[in-house]
Amino acid sequence: MSSLKNSLFSPVEMEIALVEEGIRAVADVEYPWLVELLGYIVNSGGKRVRPALTLLAGRINSDSNLDTLIPVATGVELLHTATLVHDDTIDLSNRRRGKPTAASIWGWGIATLAGDYLFSKAAELVSQANNVRADRLFARTLMALCTGELEESFSSFDLSQNRQSYLRRIGNKTASLFAMATESGGIVTNASEEAIKSLSSYGYSLGMAFQVVDDVLDFTADEEKLGKPVANDLLQGHLTLPAVMLKEQYPDGNPIKDIFEHRESERNLELAIEIICSSGIVSECYRVAQGFVAEACRALDTFPKSPYRSKLIELADYVVERQQ
Amino acid sequence: MSSLKNSLFSPVEMEIALVEEGIRAVADVEYPWLVELLGYIVNSGGKRVRPALTLLAGRINSDSNLDTLIPVATGVELLHTATLVHDDTIDLSNRRRGKPTAASIWGWGIATLAGDYLFSKAAELVSQANNVRADRLFARTLMALCTGELEESFSSFDLSQNRQSYLRRIGNKTASLFAMATESGGIVTNASEEAIKSLSSYGYSLGMAFQVVDDVLDFTADEEKLGKPVANDLLQGHLTLPAVMLKEQYPDGNPIKDIFEHRESERNLELAIEIICSSGIVSECYRVAQGFVAEACRALDTFPKSPYRSKLIELADYVVERQQ
Repeated sequence: MSSLKNSLFSPVEMEIALVEEGIRAVADVEYPWLVELLGYIVNSGGKRVRPALTLLAGRINSDSNLDTLIPVATGVELLHTATLVHDDTIDLSNRRRGKPTAASIWGWGIATLAGDYLFSKAAELVSQANNVRADRLFARTLMALCTGELEESFSSFDLSQNRQSYLRRIGNKTASLFAMATESGGIVTNASEEAIKSLSSYGYSLGMAFQVVDDVLDFTADEEKLGKPVANDLLQGHLTLPAVMLKEQYPDGNPIKDIFEHRESERNLELAIEIICSSGIVSECYRVAQGFVAEACRALDTFPKSPYRSKLIELADYVVERQQ
Repeated sequence: MSSLKNSLFSPVEMEIALVEEGIRAVADVEYPWLVELLGYIVNSGGKRVRPALTLLAGRINSDSNLDTLIPVATGVELLHTATLVHDDTIDLSNRRRGKPTAASIWGWGIATLAGDYLFSKAAELVSQANNVRADRLFARTLMALCTGELEESFSSFDLSQNRQSYLRRIGNKTASLFAMATESGGIVTNASEEAIKSLSSYGYSLGMAFQVVDDVLDFTADEEKLGKPVANDLLQGHLTLPAVMLKEQYPDGNPIKDIFEHRESERNLELAIEIICSSGIVSECYRVAQGFVAEACRALDTFPKSPYRSKLIELADYVVERQQ
């Protein structure tokens, strides 16, 4: 994480430090029990990729203004944190980033309310930019995130999921937040309409690439690095791209149908992982991710060369190369 | 409910109909499963007191504008709906307003996400007024609501709760939303600073009176009217005003300590209800509520006489006189 910050975030190092300060300040409230709860959640780590995107996207414009950019970048990170708190609550996850989840310590009732609090604090931070367009984008992004998560719940253990529904789902549940991170950086620095559109498009494609790689790593990384069981998505009934491809390539007699019907799940899960890792599926997924990275970088063509643009391009490459 | 609308909401009858339309439109989305889920929640009734407050507060100003007022009033009602969805999820309640809760039908994971979706839809509606101050008020109100609910969770079964902590808690968990309802009506109709302050103060005091009466009805109303067991709050470890007064009046040997320590809960609950209903506690609570109503009405002194002002005063009286 620190090496990531040192290299990729270098042009906005000072700004990231201010975001970190803003994140810590979230727990600076009147009630001691709330200090403890919020402090635990917001100090639980995180690579800060999303606020870095807001800062780089804001700084790419000549008129960037820290008074608006810092609270919005902080709000973007908190929105992400709040969604993780609710995800862990809904999935009954015990650990996140190597630490017990808030839900496992305080119970899911309090964790749900803590997530709600962080959503509203994130909205409050974004509103400090005094920009209605940023406020509306925030609200619409949260609607998209919820729609994606709800679709995941409603479609779990549904074998009819395909590539199209997968891409739509990750567009909502992941790419919308990346797009908001970069687009809001443009909005609150009064970028041109063309620049805002390019930044939004960059963020969206980057988010798509990020999630595709995440879904591959779920099959290929080891359990320790992932911090959760391998092929956890499949066990929970979610068809991600590698599993969709497996289903496409082996329409008859593939192990996913058996897993979804709870038949010999353990053996079939091992079989699914083996097929995915030994066939061309992993490299085909990476080709899809690379396609999104190329789209992301193309969207930046409208900007003149600058350290900010370079880092956004490097970040896109990092997203595909990362191992966790 | 319909008689309430006919009498108290008469000067804003047409506007309330537009709010109802806006509420139904929330379920008008792309995904069939989301149509069903949202439709079920938003069509589950409700007296529409809060949006009526926004409309009356907006209409009291000469410069009221329906283009901003209707989405904000709709957002206020949806914010309330979203908090109820999460409350029911956290409390594991099976019924609300005589119907099964979303959590009991779809499970608490989906109900949590549906609540999140409604929070963001409410924020999106408020943002349609193009007013950053209204957006910020929305965010801060949700922070206060969460703080109040969290305080309720953290202080449950804590005998040291007193009148002061009770009033602070209901200020956050109830009055803040009433204050937002009326204050936002003033903000988006460009009312003067003095008028906005008066409207906020009216809403806050009204909300305090509303919650005090709610907490009395929890002891005095019958189970059928309440739609939940009598003295449910006490059973859940929440000290409301009647229970705080009982504790004050009988510092030694009162049944609340036994209930909180799970000793003969049923017998002690009956005893607590009996003491509260047969002593002067109920009328003392109503005196507190009347004090808030008087404060609420005093705040309206700054406005000239109008049908809107009259209805706001009538609404304050209704809050104390209602039986459910």
